[in-house]
Amino acid sequence: MGKSFYTISFDGERVSMLDQRLLPEKEIYYEYEDYKEVARAIKDMIIRGAPAIGIAAAFGIALGAKNIKTLNREVFQKEFYQILDEFSKTRPTAVNLFWAINRMKRTFDESPCLSINEIKDELVAKAKRIYEEDILICKNIGEYGRGLIKDGDAILTHCNAGALATSEYGTALSVIRAAYQEGKGISVFADETRPYLQGARLTAWELSKDGIPVTVICDNMAGYIMSQRKINLVIVGADRIAANGDTANKIGTYSVAVLAKYHNIPFYVAAPLSTIDINTPDGSKIPIELRSEEEIRVFNSKKLVPDEAMVYNPSFDVTPWQLISAIITEKGILYPPFDKSIEGIMAAR
Amino acid sequence: MGKSFYTISFDGERVSMLDQRLLPEKEIYYEYEDYKEVARAIKDMIIRGAPAIGIAAAFGIALGAKNIKTLNREVFQKEFYQILDEFSKTRPTAVNLFWAINRMKRTFDESPCLSINEIKDELVAKAKRIYEEDILICKNIGEYGRGLIKDGDAILTHCNAGALATSEYGTALSVIRAAYQEGKGISVFADETRPYLQGARLTAWELSKDGIPVTVICDNMAGYIMSQRKINLVIVGADRIAANGDTANKIGTYSVAVLAKYHNIPFYVAAPLSTIDINTPDGSKIPIELRSEEEIRVFNSKKLVPDEAMVYNPSFDVTPWQLISAIITEKGILYPPFDKSIEGIMAAR
Repeated sequence: MGKSFYTISFDGERVSMLDQRLLPEKEIYYEYEDYKEVARAIKDMIIRGAPAIGIAAAFGIALGAKNIKTLNREVFQKEFYQILDEFSKTRPTAVNLFWAINRMKRTFDESPCLSINEIKDELVAKAKRIYEEDILICKNIGEYGRGLIKDGDAILTHCNAGALATSEYGTALSVIRAAYQEGKGISVFADETRPYLQGARLTAWELSKDGIPVTVICDNMAGYIMSQRKINLVIVGADRIAANGDTANKIGTYSVAVLAKYHNIPFYVAAPLSTIDINTPDGSKIPIELRSEEEIRVFNSKKLVPDEAMVYNPSFDVTPWQLISAIITEKGILYPPFDKSIEGIMAAR
Repeated sequence: MGKSFYTISFDGERVSMLDQRLLPEKEIYYEYEDYKEVARAIKDMIIRGAPAIGIAAAFGIALGAKNIKTLNREVFQKEFYQILDEFSKTRPTAVNLFWAINRMKRTFDESPCLSINEIKDELVAKAKRIYEEDILICKNIGEYGRGLIKDGDAILTHCNAGALATSEYGTALSVIRAAYQEGKGISVFADETRPYLQGARLTAWELSKDGIPVTVICDNMAGYIMSQRKINLVIVGADRIAANGDTANKIGTYSVAVLAKYHNIPFYVAAPLSTIDINTPDGSKIPIELRSEEEIRVFNSKKLVPDEAMVYNPSFDVTPWQLISAIITEKGILYPPFDKSIEGIMAAR
């Protein structure tokens, strides 16, 4: 697969990213020299997807640190912590964000003897390493997961857990790409994923770019096509996985998991280990982001809901571990009971 | 509830209807003097909803018959049958359409001794009677169904089975209106119902007009709010009910029914007996309309799906009778096994 687009990049001076809100109509890249613009881009969903949010935050933190104008460590620390704090407030659900922020914080905290300029270089290097690691992680998720897909399978996915949600390859879509690359004749159904339409706009776009057959359906059609035996397995990404395997992902994932269970269709989650939050015992402790009503009320300046009606817009839901057949990570496939398999893989890390 | 709008009317010369595609932004009524425009309006979903489609067809057939320019019965019959045939091709799934067409056909077939002018008057009168009957039927559905709703209940509905889908009151929404009118403190969640957004645009609009609290959610949020115990019961309409109780309704209804079953939430269908098709033994025999890909690909002239991706747009699905708690009709509430209860109520008709 030729790299015909990129999600995010960082040359040490500028963070560049594709505006995912404009796809598939326009492919426009922005360059940011101010970390505040990067934080804003995460909040406004110019970039989205748990791993990509983590990478964007790391890049933005390195960029912000680079531009701090002091050689005094205490003053630097104060401004640096302020930058970390700003990024921590961009999106609440994806744990990769906090994981990336903590790695950047540790890079600073654990370098008490370095000069400010050396620290800045370390932070840029760490952010780039997080990006490079993610490429390898995504590739390994694909390698481990591809065996779950058989020749001729039709795969349902929800939202976008692809190259656009990561550095490259994706998580769920990395598994699909790896199966496709080894010559399996597969096809993909993509839930359009209201209200932000990541499935229609992003998943369909990037799979089409790679020549993988993809059919977009409305979210409410998933049950029907399962009942027609058109789906062999489901693969989705994750925004946060609790210690027991409960998985927060884009709103609608839970409904798909229940429908898959009802139709005896395997339901897989593909995610890097950085998505697993061992400090969150179960899904009930994962904060669910509520987003603006306007995302549902209005589309392309057309009013969809009368003003008098209320709107509810939770951005994520939690799929209990009992509905998950396996979790595909860069270190191997985890099977239930996940509390045990997660504990094992985290200890072996 | 004051009648602050109307769905369809017929004064014997003109069929008038509200353009439901423009709601909630604009409330615009059209007047048709040519039956072909009425058939087109059904096909283009200016009017939709199984009972309303039946009424519109009856009005359109009466209008078309009125404008046939002959006093020769044989010539009249040929042109009249041609009109019936055109209406039968507008929408394939809703059985009320064929029920209305057959009633109009019988009105002609069973009047061999009437003059052409008398036949025309009979057809206009029959069409108006179908409309008046529907008002009473909807009211009775509400009366029978309201006992299923308790004070404080939150009700999920899908698509629009309201006044906009019938003459007045609606089917599912008639039950909700009747419960509200007897003072029960209820609230409604409306699935937005992609791709045509009947829930967001129509159900939210007409319930708000009546002051009934309504919250719009995306279709993919239904499972999540059920898991949060926010829903006490589900009520939907129907486009065709087979002899065994299998129910065709707007795409997504099946998913909601599976989710309701999983969460032990009662799932009710509200529909007139004219929606029951005893000639269709089970749901597998109900034709499912496939609509244009453009309904999903484009919204308000904005492209949502890349050209290279495929799109699948079934407009209905079938909910098997095992997932239905009861069917609320104008003659009473039917309980499973529905093959027996449907047989009984049809025989007693």
